Amino acid sequence: MATQKTSIPKGTRDFLPAEALRRAYIFDTIKDVFKLYGYAPIETPAMENLSTLMGKYGEEGDKLIFRILNSGDFLSKASPVQLAAPNWQELSPVICEKALRYDLTVPFARFVAQHRSEISFPFKRYQIQPVWRADRPQKGRYREFFQCDADVVGSDSLLNEAELLQIIDNVFSKLNLKVRIKLNNRKILSGVAQLIGQPDKITDITVAIDKLDKIGQEKVNEELAAKGLPEIAIQQLQPIISLSGSNYEKLGKLKELFINTPEGLKGAEELQTVLDYLQDWPIGADVELDLSLARGLNYYTGCIIEVKSEEAEMGSITGGGRYDNLTGIFGLEGVSGVGISFGADRIYDVLLELGRFPESAQAAAQVLFLNFGAADETYSIKILDALRKNGIASEIYPEPAKIKKQMAYANSRGFAYVAMAGEAERAAGTVSLKNMLTGDQQIIQAGMLAQALSAKN
Amino acid sequence: MATQKTSIPKGTRDFLPAEALRRAYIFDTIKDVFKLYGYAPIETPAMENLSTLMGKYGEEGDKLIFRILNSGDFLSKASPVQLAAPNWQELSPVICEKALRYDLTVPFARFVAQHRSEISFPFKRYQIQPVWRADRPQKGRYREFFQCDADVVGSDSLLNEAELLQIIDNVFSKLNLKVRIKLNNRKILSGVAQLIGQPDKITDITVAIDKLDKIGQEKVNEELAAKGLPEIAIQQLQPIISLSGSNYEKLGKLKELFINTPEGLKGAEELQTVLDYLQDWPIGADVELDLSLARGLNYYTGCIIEVKSEEAEMGSITGGGRYDNLTGIFGLEGVSGVGISFGADRIYDVLLELGRFPESAQAAAQVLFLNFGAADETYSIKILDALRKNGIASEIYPEPAKIKKQMAYANSRGFAYVAMAGEAERAAGTVSLKNMLTGDQQIIQAGMLAQALSAKN
Repeated sequence: MATQKTSIPKGTRDFLPAEALRRAYIFDTIKDVFKLYGYAPIETPAMENLSTLMGKYGEEGDKLIFRILNSGDFLSKASPVQLAAPNWQELSPVICEKALRYDLTVPFARFVAQHRSEISFPFKRYQIQPVWRADRPQKGRYREFFQCDADVVGSDSLLNEAELLQIIDNVFSKLNLKVRIKLNNRKILSGVAQLIGQPDKITDITVAIDKLDKIGQEKVNEELAAKGLPEIAIQQLQPIISLSGSNYEKLGKLKELFINTPEGLKGAEELQTVLDYLQDWPIGADVELDLSLARGLNYYTGCIIEVKSEEAEMGSITGGGRYDNLTGIFGLEGVSGVGISFGADRIYDVLLELGRFPESAQAAAQVLFLNFGAADETYSIKILDALRKNGIASEIYPEPAKIKKQMAYANSRGFAYVAMAGEAERAAGTVSLKNMLTGDQQIIQAGMLAQALSAKN
Repeated sequence: MATQKTSIPKGTRDFLPAEALRRAYIFDTIKDVFKLYGYAPIETPAMENLSTLMGKYGEEGDKLIFRILNSGDFLSKASPVQLAAPNWQELSPVICEKALRYDLTVPFARFVAQHRSEISFPFKRYQIQPVWRADRPQKGRYREFFQCDADVVGSDSLLNEAELLQIIDNVFSKLNLKVRIKLNNRKILSGVAQLIGQPDKITDITVAIDKLDKIGQEKVNEELAAKGLPEIAIQQLQPIISLSGSNYEKLGKLKELFINTPEGLKGAEELQTVLDYLQDWPIGADVELDLSLARGLNYYTGCIIEVKSEEAEMGSITGGGRYDNLTGIFGLEGVSGVGISFGADRIYDVLLELGRFPESAQAAAQVLFLNFGAADETYSIKILDALRKNGIASEIYPEPAKIKKQMAYANSRGFAYVAMAGEAERAAGTVSLKNMLTGDQQIIQAGMLAQALSAKN
């Protein structure tokens, strides 16, 4: 066979060991925190029935779903008319019954509805799996990426919101990143729309003010006018979305404004309950009530959460909120849920930019034994075996190659130590241990090596 | 919208928390051992270019590859002739440029060739990712399943084979499963074919004797005759494939037989070197030289490894071997590799059948605080927070529901302990802790709870 070129589909990525180790560090940190808070893992298949996914992400989203061709004679289900003048839009649902999941939320809703009798509610689950989108690839946007979601369904308690904020704080504290958590509540946004006499324009208003950070107040006002909002309503909106003061001060003003707007008042009270929880249960991150926070997704019905790095220029690195009736479309009504999703790719970029990945997250093993040939190899292998039994990740170069080559390998792999046991060491029952960072070298009794290395950590 | 039925594509699976936790226990055990031996993770995309996969798995394998429909107007690349009388076999490669990976081996070969300049050789990598096959679903055979592979490429040293056997032994010892490791060498099989004067029939011979365990010697002989092997060759084969004695006795006899068959002799010597390594570096599993071991895959060129449970009826639960020139098709010649693959689904079934999953692998969190309402909740949350800071996975029921309901939740979720802090406990600064297994209940000072729970583990 001729040599094939090696490439991967655009928008997808290979991860080399150093990258994969850093990614694992992020996923493991998030997973450990999820578990600490009692969230249990679930997994759903990469492929869902096309009908499960279609119509859930809007018209644009539907186009971005990767479809899987039916196996075998995929044209057998097409009618003679469809085949006589094939049209791709008509043919697509006939020849593809399955598709790759586009997010974890819709599969989760399907899962909860399907397994309702096997689940105990409130159901706290986490899910860390890849999703696929046929988006135009660009910097920071991929066609395959992981989502790291935690959700509670079947409980209206605002304790859940507070706990998710704890989780966010705990994860970023473990990752050594300073973040700001922005909070809002969809009911406040609805209240605002009612207050300015434009209850039907809630979507236009939230879409526009969601852009406040990016395009500024003036352009937002232009957009609102273009959407048909009367000038007076736009003017009424200004003081509300630019409320200032502490979180409690903002809430106080809102409650006054919403004195005759029950939905808005409820939103303000919900936020206050969440903030009150954090009084008893303080977190390290700054928490800011931000009325311009709307997020694109239309399905949030209560609390809205967004997290940004305070140290790097980057969009939202985690987001979430409460949604009512997510599972209704799958026949399970009245189940409210609240969840968050960590953006692992963006968190990766921030950690890399700030140099915050710990050394331990970037090397596979700690010690490399050089290989000096048969007899020394046997001696080294026994010591190596003892290290591994003590949980110290270590290896031996598999053949007595030139020392220069072995050292080059040690350097490129990032071992903290190189262990050498030649004839002299073997006779004395010792090992020479070289610190690859400082260059220091010391002689250690073979039987003490595991202990010496553990002490160095 | 109307209610949708909830189902997933046939041959795929949802994993509920209990299953997902047990699966994670297997994956984590395997991963930890891989890392202990210096193997580093890589990840490749779920989608590969169709051309990367086609022709690598035989004609049958090609049919089992899931193809991904090109996005947008997928018919735009089809010619008018192709569209005039659409034929599925002709159309398929035109409308699908990408496919889901079928295994981890071919993507790994592509990866090594593509990233050759970024990798240090010998390259020891592990990879735990799902693969997809459009196989007919049946018991124990799924359309989506995980492979757990470790390979070393760029080193001919048989130390690698010995180390992979160590890894196998270590993994199954940690999983508390007694296994038998079967070894053979493809060069011995070639030597046998030469010895009986049928060097061209090596594939037929190995395919037939691979079935020895399943269909018995008589049927194997019939199959060999049907493949055109003369009676005399079949007779010559009998004593060889049913050699008896210890591993070293078998090797001794083989070396005598192969006195004039260099390839066979080399195979015997390779196996002896591997067994010699295990003398210096003993493992707990039984190791058996089994000349009937051929394994289906045609690409092994040296050592062949297969692992079976000694306690449960189950096919091979791990397999592997050495392959030369895996990356040749992708333009990188002369790179030899050796690897193993753990069959996580079968290992799962064996562990479940034998009841070997540890308790700790089956529960998300250890302690549930019951919720008695506002004031008690505040008190409980602070204690809960201290537990979590001590790494004890725990949660509080998110609302003051009926105690019966909260206890039902505790039972179904499998918490080891339920913590209760009502008015009396709050006044005394204590917590009542109930052991859910024994029913025992004790009063503990709130500040001592983390310590008490850690001691119980």
